[in-house]
Amino acid sequence: MRARIAVLASGGGSNLQAILDHFDRLGDARAGDVVLVASDRADAGALNRAVGRGLPAVVLQAAARPGGAPLDALLHDHRIDLVVLAGYLRLVPAEVVARFRGRMVNVHPALLPAFGGAGMYGQRVHHAVLEAGVRVTGVTAHFVDEVYDRGRIIAQWPVPVFPRDDAGTLAARVLRVEHILYPRVVAAVAAGRATLDNCALIDPRVPVDARPAFTLLAHEESRLAENIDLALGC
Amino acid sequence: MRARIAVLASGGGSNLQAILDHFDRLGDARAGDVVLVASDRADAGALNRAVGRGLPAVVLQAAARPGGAPLDALLHDHRIDLVVLAGYLRLVPAEVVARFRGRMVNVHPALLPAFGGAGMYGQRVHHAVLEAGVRVTGVTAHFVDEVYDRGRIIAQWPVPVFPRDDAGTLAARVLRVEHILYPRVVAAVAAGRATLDNCALIDPRVPVDARPAFTLLAHEESRLAENIDLALGC
Repeated sequence: MRARIAVLASGGGSNLQAILDHFDRLGDARAGDVVLVASDRADAGALNRAVGRGLPAVVLQAAARPGGAPLDALLHDHRIDLVVLAGYLRLVPAEVVARFRGRMVNVHPALLPAFGGAGMYGQRVHHAVLEAGVRVTGVTAHFVDEVYDRGRIIAQWPVPVFPRDDAGTLAARVLRVEHILYPRVVAAVAAGRATLDNCALIDPRVPVDARPAFTLLAHEESRLAENIDLALGC
Repeated sequence: MRARIAVLASGGGSNLQAILDHFDRLGDARAGDVVLVASDRADAGALNRAVGRGLPAVVLQAAARPGGAPLDALLHDHRIDLVVLAGYLRLVPAEVVARFRGRMVNVHPALLPAFGGAGMYGQRVHHAVLEAGVRVTGVTAHFVDEVYDRGRIIAQWPVPVFPRDDAGTLAARVLRVEHILYPRVVAAVAAGRATLDNCALIDPRVPVDARPAFTLLAHEESRLAENIDLALGC
């Protein structure tokens, strides 16, 4: 039985697309199917992508707007196992978060706990990163709990900040990593390989040569030194 | 004229050693010389290393201990141009910080602004990193200003956190990167390549193949995807 996945998005839906593409590539090996796309915005590009794939695309109920579907009932009616937030800017109601404990994930365009919390979304994150003058930012995929951006971290990946970056160039570089990392995290959660109790996904037992590029190994120290020399303009 | 460098350390002085070794390797190309080592602790291993090199090794004055040298006079007498904090656990007096504005650097065993601030030093940093469940930590070299761990960042490098890490294994992995990164930052500051106004050291114009290992380039996306697949145990 493959997990039934709902993707919630407020924007263009590029992470939704990355997930759909990755699951297409996995084919029968995939552990879940996206069966529902919902948005708080009627004009979200994510809804168009869903319609183009023949997927149910639903506009969610909002206090300010009559009509629309209430999220909890929608997830129930579609028998959703896993909720994937993909650039979803509205707070998910506490009762839905509680019901999907360990079955709701989010992606954040920075290395949480840095540059997270209320008000830290979209370009604001990258502006804050640039303002702080950090040289390393990244992507965080995490379980969603009651506190904004504070759920258990599933995976993180670093992304460098360059001197001439503005929020746009930095956002683009981070987004490319999101599109690679997040679909794989969703697949791992759908397959039960990452759970709230065991979300330690980076495994040091993987073959040495295949470890993440940022891992420092003894025989790589000279290469790291060379890279730092070049980065520092030595 | 090469910069006259003082290294302040409270502990064993492994970063001091890394700086001395790096400057030895640079030979006549080095932009500075370590001419003074000082510590707040009479039993600091860093002092022994200094003595072994024939360098002045000085125990600093402390309120709780009669005698010892006051830091500001010491730096003045030795005509110090650049102050390098290397595991120095005491707060540097504000007047010294002010006098060495843009000429005092520190290294922190995490990616500031995360896991920095008062009380965050040594193993406490790594305990906090593990407690937070982050997957990426790192090293930060920064200029020292009036606020703890908040001076302008010169360079950062990411280090992965593994599932079975404890504070000891993590500290060792981070320290290896410190020993590679920090001497190069000190050399860059001594040479005037990194200043308060221009400490944007990672330069995107370096040749593509020589960029830092964590940089994501178009033709590397497939390699990154493979690494993430392996890291996630796919």
